[in-house]
Amino acid sequence: MLRLACAVIVATVPLATWADPLPSWNNTEARNRITAFVEAVTDPTNSDYVTPSDRIAVFDNDGTLWAEQPVYFQFIFAVDRLAELAQQDPAILTTPALQAAADGDLATVLQGGHDALIEVVNASHSGTSVDEFQAAVADWLDKSQHADTGLPYNEMTYQPMVELLRYLRDEGFKTYIVSGGGIHFMRVFAEDAYGIPPEQVLGTYGNSVIEDVDGVPTVIKAPGIAFIDDKEGKPINIERTIGKRPILAGGNSDGDFAMMEWTTAGEGPRLGVLIHHTDADREWAYDRDSPIGQLVDGLDKGPTMGWVIVDMAQDWSRIYTGAN
Amino acid sequence: MLRLACAVIVATVPLATWADPLPSWNNTEARNRITAFVEAVTDPTNSDYVTPSDRIAVFDNDGTLWAEQPVYFQFIFAVDRLAELAQQDPAILTTPALQAAADGDLATVLQGGHDALIEVVNASHSGTSVDEFQAAVADWLDKSQHADTGLPYNEMTYQPMVELLRYLRDEGFKTYIVSGGGIHFMRVFAEDAYGIPPEQVLGTYGNSVIEDVDGVPTVIKAPGIAFIDDKEGKPINIERTIGKRPILAGGNSDGDFAMMEWTTAGEGPRLGVLIHHTDADREWAYDRDSPIGQLVDGLDKGPTMGWVIVDMAQDWSRIYTGAN
Repeated sequence: MLRLACAVIVATVPLATWADPLPSWNNTEARNRITAFVEAVTDPTNSDYVTPSDRIAVFDNDGTLWAEQPVYFQFIFAVDRLAELAQQDPAILTTPALQAAADGDLATVLQGGHDALIEVVNASHSGTSVDEFQAAVADWLDKSQHADTGLPYNEMTYQPMVELLRYLRDEGFKTYIVSGGGIHFMRVFAEDAYGIPPEQVLGTYGNSVIEDVDGVPTVIKAPGIAFIDDKEGKPINIERTIGKRPILAGGNSDGDFAMMEWTTAGEGPRLGVLIHHTDADREWAYDRDSPIGQLVDGLDKGPTMGWVIVDMAQDWSRIYTGAN
Repeated sequence: MLRLACAVIVATVPLATWADPLPSWNNTEARNRITAFVEAVTDPTNSDYVTPSDRIAVFDNDGTLWAEQPVYFQFIFAVDRLAELAQQDPAILTTPALQAAADGDLATVLQGGHDALIEVVNASHSGTSVDEFQAAVADWLDKSQHADTGLPYNEMTYQPMVELLRYLRDEGFKTYIVSGGGIHFMRVFAEDAYGIPPEQVLGTYGNSVIEDVDGVPTVIKAPGIAFIDDKEGKPINIERTIGKRPILAGGNSDGDFAMMEWTTAGEGPRLGVLIHHTDADREWAYDRDSPIGQLVDGLDKGPTMGWVIVDMAQDWSRIYTGAN
């Protein structure tokens, strides 16, 4: 009875009366369509009302919640880590791609295509426990800055998206990351950066094995990728892990198209939020021809499916969480 | 401020003052060790205190949360569904194992080993959308009874374990199923039966594909098993999905050994709860020689790792949630 009474009191004091939940969003159509959607699905008197347990919101990470240029930050980590490991043991550089990566010659690695990338991922992301790997990621985040902005990578999160995630949670949504990035990499910063706990971080993952380390069974990262969380892998992973079709999906590239199409094709109120990188001054401007974050289908078909197309230059008053 | 005040009020009125949270547990060592553990990890003044976000509890399903004799209930569903599908189209019975299954000749199917089981699973668990499959499971649960008890299968859940799950959640734990059973099968009843929502049901899963069904992208269950959530697969799946080592794990067979060993080997307070089927009168008595739920390692090594060994005959005053 006491619990119920408290719940009622809390429910009748909306946060919006205290402060604007989205201060970094300009007062444009994008913001207004997002808040109208959230207000509709949280209003019990609205025909579009959605029960809290079904308020699932999923977001891509690279290019949607933080920047991804000139290459995915996890790839920069992989190359930096490989160079560090090679200092201790140069014998690990067994192929031309690994040698190029350790030399910081990213162009050569990227020319090597899928096989070269797998070599770099295996050499930099396996052979340690998850705990050791995550300590290396944390250390790298602490000491590294982006070459163009000078910001730590985990301050190149998008302030408007951090606000959107918090706003959705305040309105009873459960927020998830569903990214092509690696789960062990993202979980190092996702809780601090986005308020998203480890169990709500879905992504690509490698093989794992259980090994005895000093008498303690321990999860060890093994070579090889077990699941790629991109394109149709995203809705498959969401269905498998969450067991529900979300009502809101955010993304920025054609790797997110299947997730957003599947989300917004469900019955009842659904919203797709597509981040369009239009701001060459404050961030980067890219879409149809970009090797990273290529965006064609979303621009061509998203509007006909009712997606909100966020124009970063126009819709966001601030870009990064870090000073900029 | 109002939220905080309410939280404080609620937190200072423990549920235990109102009612015994575990009425179906006898006042024996098993119960007392479980409650002592929970009281320690939830008491901020105790050196074993665990922050709520780390209070992760994982439970096997078959033989731990509901019965599993004489064969896994999901296997009975598979055979029943195959017989139903074969009535509509006998041509689907393309192998001797499928023919035997549709005839209800389980002994012949089991003699066929792994290949026969995969044939039965593929024929009964793929080729439909997840929604259609789950509607078939719900229909089967509604109309089927266990041959020995006469109970609906979803009333052969163990009342003491349902109470334990609720007690743990009331004490700030997040409860998960981690089962060799199929995720789409278990999610049909796990929320009603155990209070565990779809995203906290981990298990075995098959391949999936996205197909266009009447213009709507839809997850379709495809042939083939993508991941078997048994033995070392259990800790690997937990680490991959939840991203943390739990502090409490419950199981009943050697298929749970790796999960329980990994859980209880972690630093700090940890508890393993092993259900030993000792009650031939009210349920079944089986362990070392049983083809279903074989239990050898847990009995031999569990006590030395501090696990609570639950003697069903001695420790539980009631077995099933359904009348019995």
